[in-house]
Amino acid sequence: MAILRLALSQLNVTVGDLEGNRRLVEAALRQARAAHADLLLVPELSLTGYPPEDLLLKPSFIERNLRMLRVLAPSAREVVAVVGFVDRDRQGRLYNAAAVLANGRHVATYRKQYLPNYGVFDEQRYFTPGSEFVLLELGAARVGLTICEDLWTAPPCELLAHAGANLVVNISASPYYAGKFMVRQRLFSRQARRNRVPIAYCNLVGGQDELVFDGASLVLDARGRRLVHGCAFREDTVFVDLPFAASRPRRPLMPVRRVRLPPPAPGPRAPLPPAPRRILGPDEEVYEALRLGLRDYVRKNGFSTVVFGLSGGIDSALTACLAVDALGAAHVRAMVMPSRFSSAGTRQDAQRLAKALKMQVVAISIEPVFQAYLNSLRPVFGRRPADVTEQNIQARIRGNLLMALSNKFGWLVLNTGNKSEMATGYTTLYGDMAGGLAVIKDVPKTLVYRLARWRNHHPPGTWPAEARRAKAGPIPERIFRRAPTAELASRQKDQDTLPPYDALDRILKASVEEDRSLQDTIARSRASASTVRRVFHMVDRAEYKRRQAPPGIKITPKAFGRDRRMPITNRYVER
Amino acid sequence: MAILRLALSQLNVTVGDLEGNRRLVEAALRQARAAHADLLLVPELSLTGYPPEDLLLKPSFIERNLRMLRVLAPSAREVVAVVGFVDRDRQGRLYNAAAVLANGRHVATYRKQYLPNYGVFDEQRYFTPGSEFVLLELGAARVGLTICEDLWTAPPCELLAHAGANLVVNISASPYYAGKFMVRQRLFSRQARRNRVPIAYCNLVGGQDELVFDGASLVLDARGRRLVHGCAFREDTVFVDLPFAASRPRRPLMPVRRVRLPPPAPGPRAPLPPAPRRILGPDEEVYEALRLGLRDYVRKNGFSTVVFGLSGGIDSALTACLAVDALGAAHVRAMVMPSRFSSAGTRQDAQRLAKALKMQVVAISIEPVFQAYLNSLRPVFGRRPADVTEQNIQARIRGNLLMALSNKFGWLVLNTGNKSEMATGYTTLYGDMAGGLAVIKDVPKTLVYRLARWRNHHPPGTWPAEARRAKAGPIPERIFRRAPTAELASRQKDQDTLPPYDALDRILKASVEEDRSLQDTIARSRASASTVRRVFHMVDRAEYKRRQAPPGIKITPKAFGRDRRMPITNRYVER
Repeated sequence: MAILRLALSQLNVTVGDLEGNRRLVEAALRQARAAHADLLLVPELSLTGYPPEDLLLKPSFIERNLRMLRVLAPSAREVVAVVGFVDRDRQGRLYNAAAVLANGRHVATYRKQYLPNYGVFDEQRYFTPGSEFVLLELGAARVGLTICEDLWTAPPCELLAHAGANLVVNISASPYYAGKFMVRQRLFSRQARRNRVPIAYCNLVGGQDELVFDGASLVLDARGRRLVHGCAFREDTVFVDLPFAASRPRRPLMPVRRVRLPPPAPGPRAPLPPAPRRILGPDEEVYEALRLGLRDYVRKNGFSTVVFGLSGGIDSALTACLAVDALGAAHVRAMVMPSRFSSAGTRQDAQRLAKALKMQVVAISIEPVFQAYLNSLRPVFGRRPADVTEQNIQARIRGNLLMALSNKFGWLVLNTGNKSEMATGYTTLYGDMAGGLAVIKDVPKTLVYRLARWRNHHPPGTWPAEARRAKAGPIPERIFRRAPTAELASRQKDQDTLPPYDALDRILKASVEEDRSLQDTIARSRASASTVRRVFHMVDRAEYKRRQAPPGIKITPKAFGRDRRMPITNRYVER
Repeated sequence: MAILRLALSQLNVTVGDLEGNRRLVEAALRQARAAHADLLLVPELSLTGYPPEDLLLKPSFIERNLRMLRVLAPSAREVVAVVGFVDRDRQGRLYNAAAVLANGRHVATYRKQYLPNYGVFDEQRYFTPGSEFVLLELGAARVGLTICEDLWTAPPCELLAHAGANLVVNISASPYYAGKFMVRQRLFSRQARRNRVPIAYCNLVGGQDELVFDGASLVLDARGRRLVHGCAFREDTVFVDLPFAASRPRRPLMPVRRVRLPPPAPGPRAPLPPAPRRILGPDEEVYEALRLGLRDYVRKNGFSTVVFGLSGGIDSALTACLAVDALGAAHVRAMVMPSRFSSAGTRQDAQRLAKALKMQVVAISIEPVFQAYLNSLRPVFGRRPADVTEQNIQARIRGNLLMALSNKFGWLVLNTGNKSEMATGYTTLYGDMAGGLAVIKDVPKTLVYRLARWRNHHPPGTWPAEARRAKAGPIPERIFRRAPTAELASRQKDQDTLPPYDALDRILKASVEEDRSLQDTIARSRASASTVRRVFHMVDRAEYKRRQAPPGIKITPKAFGRDRRMPITNRYVER
């Protein structure tokens, strides 16, 4: 029984950094060779990063990606590598493709056949589907190639198995949402079991604008049982030894291109050291997704330090923890910007949190600027009563002060708004909606509380030194207990305007994430028909605000952004 | 020789307004019947509006569109109607479809076969392509149905002609860009000529978020000559009488569904009155596109009055003319917000323009608020020299004052930024980038001058009463002659930071609109390599700003927005 040693390198590549990405693949090749692996997988579109979006429309970008592949090929010696890149045919059509590199040459190409064009995906905008399967023959091993979506549907795995594949590999760039690891494992396990074929799945890791890729690569045996998996939210290489007996060739259901490659090394190899890896719990998983998404957005965009408004509420408290855990306290500045409506309690809580996290605080009262605005507007506003206008002015002063510090010191502004307020428009455009990245934009308010609680109970272990030195529980208990308030008017509470957050979040899950009808949402949310109707109306009305919101990290099956493309001008009212 | 009387109603429907859209189709049916037309065409997806985007993911939305079609059918008597709607099959798949209504019933359906998924289009996100052509038989007339993109490619017209079509009709929702009328006429003329078949093309009219549909429906004879066309940028119904002799049936190249319908009325009908319609010149065409896009965005979103910052520069001058011409001066407020850097000249020019256009002016100096910001920030900024930070603060104060008036009085804020500054990021996020609609966001600065000049030389004729009473030339000559300046610092000129606008706009056309490489852009723009390189860098760097920009009206082949989907996190640098 020959052994195929497989290496799955879940790389953190950067969109557009063709040279840098090539170097990461080269390093993976060196590592695979050093471990005497026979076959190396790196993620989908490793050379370009994923998703490259309209960079794909630039011929020079495609050229350079092809050049990088030519530069890379000679490094593939002693190991066969499957590398994601953009292929182009003579007619200029593009393909999401996998290059097979062996003996220092590019010996074969597989072109993805199932191109997702839903949710955040636009692959049919760029790519032509491939039409031919590829089977690599490494001794007794018959390795069928697939790319991402190919394995989310039944035919490719079935057809490859029928053509004699005794291993199906998949290179992928699969964006994270909460619980996706289990979704994938169930799906791939069923595919493995049904077709009696092991599956090796290598996924991208890292943040790219609104998307986080979680890595968490997987190898399953022919009965669908997990053999090994990669770390979630970290670069990692998974090694595994798979035994293969010579298999009986079967008659393929369709033509398959067979590529003969060097057989696995015959002699015994040093055994692989055990590499136990934890499966994250549900709250930790989301927390880590946000932390990685935040870190990569900041670093890949060339920033080192962030600034955000620290209000003494739960949203900015969670954002503070995430920022410190992602970047280290030395790279985080908290701005405290009290007004006439800020209570002593929230101010104290903000200070205590900042101290616990060892963040440097910048304090500026917004009162003098607010007064100047009121004076300037008085001739126009006359004796009209104060309304949401005056509240928005305060929020916008805070936004402007944050932007002023960003401009002067080169800090990136983190936005601290949550999904519940982004959905309902309970937020001020250019005010508390300002920022370069909206860290918890896709986190419903009830989950904000859960994540904050989780962070308070779990002193970070593998996290940066600054965070490790902090004591557990940086968020003061009072922040959890205080009724949520924007503090933009006297005795204001969120619940004066919005339904209670647990009801609201149930309504939003049904209507926004699951696209359920009004009636269905009423049935599922256990809220009154009038409340649900009001929330539907608020969500529709707030589309214009969301269109100008900063990007935020997607952690649910449907985030605001490319995932949900609603018209602003929209007269549709559900009944 | 029988005569087929054709009516093409270019409707201005609204996305999501299913009842309202149905009523517009009913009115078109009444009008067609009154004119004794045999066949009525209304635009693609008339019942839902175009593009309905992710409303299509709501099953209740699809249901209601189907219900509207059932309600509509009985109105189709004495005339056959081809009506765009969303069809659904038993597996729940959706189709961009045309219903054929006759004798008060829905008698046949054609499903669009070519689904555009590039530029601003995402049709493969929602729709399945149809697979069968439909030929309507009205006496001797054999009418082949197509929908929009079907006719932008050769096969459908050819296959229908071969199957015996002696008329090909097309219902469409084709977004405008400058010169598209001629592009379409050339294309359809070639199709008509090659296949020796007349073509009747009915296009949507009206604004929908970033898109404007120009109407300008077309009927061409079998030699590709234009018989009639519809008004551009206005609702209109085009009538035409087409003669048909009994044609020899040809053997179709593929199966075609034939639908027998009532033959045209045999007797003589009252002749159609002549309806001469102007073809607009290039600058007028763009001006009218912007005017309609502005008007429809304001009205369809339930606003009546707009407010914008009037600086005394050319951008806000053009925006002022557009707003007044679209809505009437009574619905336009100009805010003048001088600072310590505003010259007496620009202030005077702003006042003179406001007077010429009869706009009400609100004046608020930003100086006291600016001073309050500087005082509040002094403890943090210390003795650091003034830089772009202080400029941005001024721009953001203006943005906030505009938003305060919007909040207090319910006015929509118009943004006055042009495409050249949006491209290069020469603009302040939350400052001069604030607003609900960026009217001239897709207009390069050199075209801003041209459009302003055009407006000054062409006193509006068919426009609202307020504009008609205004004398020609509301924009003071000095505004054209003054070197462009943001007036945010002492003696500041745009050209201190940017290349001259004629060079810049050439670079942007090549690089942004045509996706040309750096080298190609250098060759075409006649600018120095270092200038072009600098502009490429500015464009890439400003993506994060554009992501938070208000929607703007698309008038070029490639606008910022859904048309150009670039990653923010992007390390690609062209060489």
